[in-house]
Amino acid sequence: MSTGTQQTTGFFHSRTIDELGGQVRAGDVRAVDLTQAALRAIDALDGGINAFVTVDREGALRAAEKADAELAEGRDRGPLHGIPVAVKDIIDVAGVRTTMGSAHFADHVSTEDAECVARLREAGAVVVGKTTTHEFAFGATGDRACNGPSRNPHDPTRMTGGSSGGSGAAVAAGMVPLALGTDTGGSVRIPASLCGVAGFKPAYGAVPTAGVFPLSQTLDHVGVLAATTEDCRLGYRALAGLRPMPSREHGSEVSIGWIPPDVLHPTDPQVTATARAALDVDGLDVREVRPAGLDGMLRAFGAIQFSEAHAVHAERVADAPQLFTDDVLAILRKAGETAGWQYVRALTERDEWRGVVAALLDEVELLALPTTCVPAPEVDERQVEVQGARIPLRGALIGLTRPWNLAGVPALSLPAGAVRGLPVGLQLVGRPGQEDRLFAVASRVSP
Amino acid sequence: MSTGTQQTTGFFHSRTIDELGGQVRAGDVRAVDLTQAALRAIDALDGGINAFVTVDREGALRAAEKADAELAEGRDRGPLHGIPVAVKDIIDVAGVRTTMGSAHFADHVSTEDAECVARLREAGAVVVGKTTTHEFAFGATGDRACNGPSRNPHDPTRMTGGSSGGSGAAVAAGMVPLALGTDTGGSVRIPASLCGVAGFKPAYGAVPTAGVFPLSQTLDHVGVLAATTEDCRLGYRALAGLRPMPSREHGSEVSIGWIPPDVLHPTDPQVTATARAALDVDGLDVREVRPAGLDGMLRAFGAIQFSEAHAVHAERVADAPQLFTDDVLAILRKAGETAGWQYVRALTERDEWRGVVAALLDEVELLALPTTCVPAPEVDERQVEVQGARIPLRGALIGLTRPWNLAGVPALSLPAGAVRGLPVGLQLVGRPGQEDRLFAVASRVSP
Repeated sequence: MSTGTQQTTGFFHSRTIDELGGQVRAGDVRAVDLTQAALRAIDALDGGINAFVTVDREGALRAAEKADAELAEGRDRGPLHGIPVAVKDIIDVAGVRTTMGSAHFADHVSTEDAECVARLREAGAVVVGKTTTHEFAFGATGDRACNGPSRNPHDPTRMTGGSSGGSGAAVAAGMVPLALGTDTGGSVRIPASLCGVAGFKPAYGAVPTAGVFPLSQTLDHVGVLAATTEDCRLGYRALAGLRPMPSREHGSEVSIGWIPPDVLHPTDPQVTATARAALDVDGLDVREVRPAGLDGMLRAFGAIQFSEAHAVHAERVADAPQLFTDDVLAILRKAGETAGWQYVRALTERDEWRGVVAALLDEVELLALPTTCVPAPEVDERQVEVQGARIPLRGALIGLTRPWNLAGVPALSLPAGAVRGLPVGLQLVGRPGQEDRLFAVASRVSP
Repeated sequence: MSTGTQQTTGFFHSRTIDELGGQVRAGDVRAVDLTQAALRAIDALDGGINAFVTVDREGALRAAEKADAELAEGRDRGPLHGIPVAVKDIIDVAGVRTTMGSAHFADHVSTEDAECVARLREAGAVVVGKTTTHEFAFGATGDRACNGPSRNPHDPTRMTGGSSGGSGAAVAAGMVPLALGTDTGGSVRIPASLCGVAGFKPAYGAVPTAGVFPLSQTLDHVGVLAATTEDCRLGYRALAGLRPMPSREHGSEVSIGWIPPDVLHPTDPQVTATARAALDVDGLDVREVRPAGLDGMLRAFGAIQFSEAHAVHAERVADAPQLFTDDVLAILRKAGETAGWQYVRALTERDEWRGVVAALLDEVELLALPTTCVPAPEVDERQVEVQGARIPLRGALIGLTRPWNLAGVPALSLPAGAVRGLPVGLQLVGRPGQEDRLFAVASRVSP
């Protein structure tokens, strides 16, 4: 938390969920206190950040009072009991507006909780509001939304990244300790990287998407953002319907396959060096690996995301194009030009890519690479300089994250350090079913 | 077998596989005799029919000799032991040319047997040759192939239907008692209907398609054509890897849902009446049913077949269009225009259609309707008159069969009688896993 004249650090900055939950359970702090702290932080900070579309003060306080009453009666829902959370505004929360970041849904109020929200509530979490999303989650910059761009707490002239930009900013600014996002090509991990927090995209299907507005149904993942990887782990276990479990340290040496990011996309050398240096800790056996089949991976991701996204929006594009932002309308129109036969081939190429990734993860336990190719650009930028060339920003943001959506494997972005004063993330990618191992290694890298 | 000046009835006309197999096993007839009878019938009749692209005399006689030797040693492979079969020319037979009906593959020789062919051989069948297929199986008329049109044995000026036209003609003319076909929108059942034989499309996935050139991978089915439904049943069980089993009569009354064909596609009223009258036998409780969701079914079939077909041929269409016939090039180009988002929606609409069909088959045991909307038109016709209007022939041929490819349920066409001197089929559609019941009812309808 550095630049800008206004206060940019909220109550939850540097407080972990484990610590907060312990205080709630010990009776030192009430859930209502935590919710009020979140609401105060939002009031104080969000004017310059725009992390929130909607703040549900009454609903949040009611939920917090209920959480306190339950604890008083001896009912403890676990690590998230009484913890304030924010929810990306493409995810349904009953009785609250869900805009999808779009003028098409400016007045849309959800009638039911999405399954992921229901699971957080079941775990005792308190929903305080809805966070800014890139329009329909179809953009990695986080600066096209009907409520305006979200802004990076590290420098409000810079973008948060997206599409879960508000969730990244809300956590980075300390407004909430945990936030829900979605990730179709990197939309949880990119804002985590650019905002300097942790973000986890689970394995495909591990968290239900019922009640989440689709971007690309076979690539969409519900994920979490938090200040630390351990807090992501707590949120993930609740979302996946897993028992809360203490994190387990694995003492043994771990084999890590470092993917030189330039094989996937041209990357700022300082970003590469910073992410690679984060792996220089004891107990990690790091060697270089280079996946094959990248052309097919790229074709498959493009054809699948584009076809599935246009299928969601075809009538809106045809009947009410004026309600889209120019950027999202343009990419949706382009998406509609993908041919059916290309989608059919993409299904085969996706299977091939899954085979490539599975084979790599037979050789090493985890893959590692930077999360984004660049630190946060300024809001509204659409090109970025990398290695002396101006290149489109979209690829520089999703180039290192989209392969893991296509593969459907769990991927975690964790803070790796700063480049030119701005945070950048390291990405760890693992096998479905081995998430605890992934988090254990992450906690060694970024304690 | 009526018109034309040449002989149009081969040895296998009016001889069932059960009868022939019994003679072989009793030592009354050798497998070599049956193969020679098939080769003689082909020599005598095929000049005017063009059912065969390639006749493999030597391979067939070798296989027949082996079959005889095995029987002499006491090895009996079952009902198909020593029975001559013909194989559609998009299905690999080791060492034999497979043209796909196309100039693109005019000199292509397969190196291995397709799995379905291997299973027939394992059951003792003798492959005598490869049958004319509509080019790349992409056409229901059977009159576009690099070796020229197949011709209907009932009237060689008329088409066989297709795409398994040669297989239908070879069985109808009595050249072989059994033939393999493939069926993506009706390509087994249509020539069965127009040529006056039985044709069975199994449930999706019941017979492997390995070694079969794809038309539309999620709609393609390997099927069989034979003079009788009982012979189809014998062939099907071998193809599906099921034990040979005697057919079982079910004495109980069977509920049949008659689908008035005009709800699917305008149908010649005489065809409708002929097919419906075939159901007027004891023990069938026939009532009318009308499936919902037909618009979605049509969209889904079109988008899936077109996208998947173009995916197979994109490079050939771009690089060597002159090697296609005009008809197939035109439909492949049109197929390439289907959008990816339409394919994505089609996957959902297919699921919905499967639900509709499953619900109907919870109400009644079998569905029944005509197989084609018209009897065989003349070769090269592309329009047909139905109910006073000239309409495109393609829909009149596949309109009643394609719904069951999309649903993936077993469907059998059996001879129902004649309209204006030409055969037409009745289609019975059942539940996957209940094929024996389907065949038992068929044998009541058309003993």
